[in-house]
Amino acid sequence: MPIVTTRQQIHDLMKVALGEAAADLALINGDIVNVYTGEVLTGNTVLIKGDRIAYVGKSADMSIGPSTEVIDASGKTLIPGLIDGHAHLDYIFSVSELSRYAMRSGTTTIISEVDHIVFPLGYQGIIQFLKSAQDQPIKIFATIPPMGTMSRTTEKHALTVNELRKLFRRREVIRLGESYWAQVITGYPRVVDLIAEAIDAGKRVDGHSAGARGNKLQAYVASGISSCHEPITVDEVKERLRLGLFTMVRESAIRSELEVVAEIKDENIDLSRLGLVTDTPGLQQLIDHGYMEFIVQKAINVGFDPITAIKMATINIAQHFGIDNLVGGIAPGKCADIVVIPNLRAIRPEYVISNGRLVARDGRLLVEPKKYAYPKSAMRSIRLTRDLTADDFAIPVDTSERQVKVRVMDSVTELVTREAIIDVPVANGRLDVDVDADLLKVAAIDKTYMPGKTFVGFIRGFKLKRGAMATSGAWDACTITVVGVSEADMAQAVNRVRQLKGGVVVCADGKMLAEISLPVGGIISLEPIETLASMMGNVQQAAASLGFPHPDMPMTLAVLSSPAIPFLRICEEGLFNVSQNRLVDLIVG
Amino acid sequence: MPIVTTRQQIHDLMKVALGEAAADLALINGDIVNVYTGEVLTGNTVLIKGDRIAYVGKSADMSIGPSTEVIDASGKTLIPGLIDGHAHLDYIFSVSELSRYAMRSGTTTIISEVDHIVFPLGYQGIIQFLKSAQDQPIKIFATIPPMGTMSRTTEKHALTVNELRKLFRRREVIRLGESYWAQVITGYPRVVDLIAEAIDAGKRVDGHSAGARGNKLQAYVASGISSCHEPITVDEVKERLRLGLFTMVRESAIRSELEVVAEIKDENIDLSRLGLVTDTPGLQQLIDHGYMEFIVQKAINVGFDPITAIKMATINIAQHFGIDNLVGGIAPGKCADIVVIPNLRAIRPEYVISNGRLVARDGRLLVEPKKYAYPKSAMRSIRLTRDLTADDFAIPVDTSERQVKVRVMDSVTELVTREAIIDVPVANGRLDVDVDADLLKVAAIDKTYMPGKTFVGFIRGFKLKRGAMATSGAWDACTITVVGVSEADMAQAVNRVRQLKGGVVVCADGKMLAEISLPVGGIISLEPIETLASMMGNVQQAAASLGFPHPDMPMTLAVLSSPAIPFLRICEEGLFNVSQNRLVDLIVG
Repeated sequence: MPIVTTRQQIHDLMKVALGEAAADLALINGDIVNVYTGEVLTGNTVLIKGDRIAYVGKSADMSIGPSTEVIDASGKTLIPGLIDGHAHLDYIFSVSELSRYAMRSGTTTIISEVDHIVFPLGYQGIIQFLKSAQDQPIKIFATIPPMGTMSRTTEKHALTVNELRKLFRRREVIRLGESYWAQVITGYPRVVDLIAEAIDAGKRVDGHSAGARGNKLQAYVASGISSCHEPITVDEVKERLRLGLFTMVRESAIRSELEVVAEIKDENIDLSRLGLVTDTPGLQQLIDHGYMEFIVQKAINVGFDPITAIKMATINIAQHFGIDNLVGGIAPGKCADIVVIPNLRAIRPEYVISNGRLVARDGRLLVEPKKYAYPKSAMRSIRLTRDLTADDFAIPVDTSERQVKVRVMDSVTELVTREAIIDVPVANGRLDVDVDADLLKVAAIDKTYMPGKTFVGFIRGFKLKRGAMATSGAWDACTITVVGVSEADMAQAVNRVRQLKGGVVVCADGKMLAEISLPVGGIISLEPIETLASMMGNVQQAAASLGFPHPDMPMTLAVLSSPAIPFLRICEEGLFNVSQNRLVDLIVG
Repeated sequence: MPIVTTRQQIHDLMKVALGEAAADLALINGDIVNVYTGEVLTGNTVLIKGDRIAYVGKSADMSIGPSTEVIDASGKTLIPGLIDGHAHLDYIFSVSELSRYAMRSGTTTIISEVDHIVFPLGYQGIIQFLKSAQDQPIKIFATIPPMGTMSRTTEKHALTVNELRKLFRRREVIRLGESYWAQVITGYPRVVDLIAEAIDAGKRVDGHSAGARGNKLQAYVASGISSCHEPITVDEVKERLRLGLFTMVRESAIRSELEVVAEIKDENIDLSRLGLVTDTPGLQQLIDHGYMEFIVQKAINVGFDPITAIKMATINIAQHFGIDNLVGGIAPGKCADIVVIPNLRAIRPEYVISNGRLVARDGRLLVEPKKYAYPKSAMRSIRLTRDLTADDFAIPVDTSERQVKVRVMDSVTELVTREAIIDVPVANGRLDVDVDADLLKVAAIDKTYMPGKTFVGFIRGFKLKRGAMATSGAWDACTITVVGVSEADMAQAVNRVRQLKGGVVVCADGKMLAEISLPVGGIISLEPIETLASMMGNVQQAAASLGFPHPDMPMTLAVLSSPAIPFLRICEEGLFNVSQNRLVDLIVG
């Protein structure tokens, strides 16, 4: 990654700027969006030497020689390479696959959290991910979040202060990533320790304050948090900006807030601390619409001034992350990351230059990303030593009562669950599903550290009429999560995940309906994004055919193990009440 | 300096924000300038715990207990502690003395170059200065510039890459300081090495691009420079902003550019990358007008919107220097640096809170700065082993001609000299002054490393009719600089500087007229600022009585040795042509 500047590079750049040496590449006579002043400067030439910009202006002729590649940008507009300020690239797709879409879209820098890989693969997993992101034709900076898990077993394998200290020695690791606000303000020791360590190391700390407000939000900010990408209303955006948080508006498959939040533009407040991010682009979104160029275009379409929109995906993000010395603007000394578009209102990349190389032209890729071969150890996160059987999903009860009161995960949106207390009949000393009442079984099975340790509970709202579905891509956990009507199908789904060395599976009546293989840590696919999207479509269709009502089954299933999302969650040790921050009993009476 | 955050501090701040613990200090019911959004938020309370802000808003009552000190800010306006983004505090006055004025003025953070002390006292001098700036009631961050000197002897004692690396381990050393642009673009090796080292260490590099424009300015920026505090016209400001430089408008005794540059406010460009700085406050300015509160008030008076002006002296500077996690705004987690003023248009500090302490009230100091005792070694920079005599200032010539052509420093403004070639008669094998033609002698005497090594030349434009004046506070050099009519007076002036262990001296006809003692490194006084200003007045008056035409004799004399200012300069080795970057002969024919 060209984030190092050598003495030779300094001399070379100065010579080109002074007209004493020829540029490697010149974009001549374009209209340049100057994100520093907010102007469009017409008829300017950009000179590039190596991976950097040497000169931007009208006195460039002296440095254009026979060896200089020239792109005529007359009548075109030049904007800085776009930046996605918040994504999670260690999940589902591989970095090289995403890079293909990034290059086509003019996205030349991504700030990626590295959070999913730490639980199944530990510190070495983080290092492997960072290696996979190195030397790509785009720049990927990493933030390492202090993820909390509900599992006491998995917690032992979470990021430590010492590991964080080592990671901060790497140039591409620029910050501590998002912490969950409820964990911080309740004083979760490891998370607070990691925050203090990061601040002590002179690094900033990113935030995740979904739903927090008032005194609780302020307590979270007081801990040292510098950003949030979770506001979903104009008032939430304003509250965060006023607290000094860099505030990122999320627009992607996960959530799409740009349209609602766009009203902020009419509030007469400073928007320079506002950014546009995806929080990870959706597969189908990448294929159908693109990446950051689509988000910036949408920002313009919903009424943001084009220069404001471009700044929100370039210099604003770069300044927040302290990388504006390298990226975010078209100026001497910066990385040569430039997107040529038809005009200010059409964010349609005709030429994409990343690190001084022309990497895409009219949506056609000219440079291939680097494929990273994960070591075999990374494919061994599913350590179950035997296949499961239907009996593994039985819930025996030791009671003479005919029914018991059971605490049930009540799925109220595709992400959120609440607690419901439901009477469940006892049959042969066991508790069974009740399809008519939409009462299904849900289980979390430790996949790595205490392989096979299983907790089985109940869930409502998934509406399956038959079969089961499972994923090893559980968030903030090291489990396989499975939901089903049939215990035999639940076992089969998990066993198929085991065979795949990780994946998402839907099955019914003993038959596999659809699957995705996620061999790296049980969370990352090695397939092309197009294949992956198609598999994802099949999985979703299969889930829907069983009755599943939400649009993204793998995600809805994955978040059941995340303490970041309210209210009742599951891990291999049991049910977890997020508000009370503790394990709670399945049977309550 | 409270730039470290501990785990305990995080817990304490969160408790106060949550209403679970009492604040130490509360400013209640004030109108708060929110520099993040550009709003004024009325009727808000700020809660302070230790040296940090815990909460800002309207739900603060729960955290105000019997132990909380309460300041009623009803009807008042609260702004963040002001920041001077560029000063040189290792010259003339001591840090503790300046801190007194800073506190009264609401200036709670200063970014200081540490450049003067390195030549006489070396790396240890820098460390001593940093110690003197530690633990003051205000925060002083340091930038260490790669100062170039014309002297090959002194150059050997300049900052090295290894020393810079060690300095960057200190939390308060935040950047490489200003380099002189001509030295950079001509590839001055040590300076380019230091720039590359700083960038390699992840630190930014500040700039000084006085007079540079076009391709030369771009070459300088391409080397990695991030800022400039030297523009003197609106066009120069715009050119720098467009190149991505953080651009600082200087307003102080050195230069006063605010009035001219104010037109930038009408150009409809983004002003968030613009700052207000002093480049060191003048002594009399401090006494008569104050410090940053005076500059911000002036910015408002010349037409800047008050919030824009306040941002230029707070958050804009903090963001540029990457210290906005600590200072620059009133928000939870930031250092409790707050100035209470009557209203938005009256920057008259009624209460000044720095690091959570009330340090000044209505211009009255409530806290004393820490006095630093420099070690004795710091007082031994003047190492001349004998007194000089008139003969030391003779210019013998070995010629049979009746006159020779001499290269003369022609002083055309108080700072700038140009080269003049003048016929000077030979008398008794020597060249003499010619008072009627305003042709005086100027000499540079190495004070430390080759003590007594002297070069004598001619200067025009100083207009002395008699006597001599000398300073050991020469810029970018380790010399005593002396200008005079009488060689005997020149010797006496230098000898008095020697007796003082450093200082500024004016004498005539064998009598001392005025003097300032500068014992630390020959450049820093230990006197109170009021005493120093009075001595400075006497020195200036004495110089004027001899005919000196410029307003600040010590400075005009000091800069004769600086390669930063065009065109003909002097060091103990000879005359130096700044444009050609080389020593040139005194006698040219």
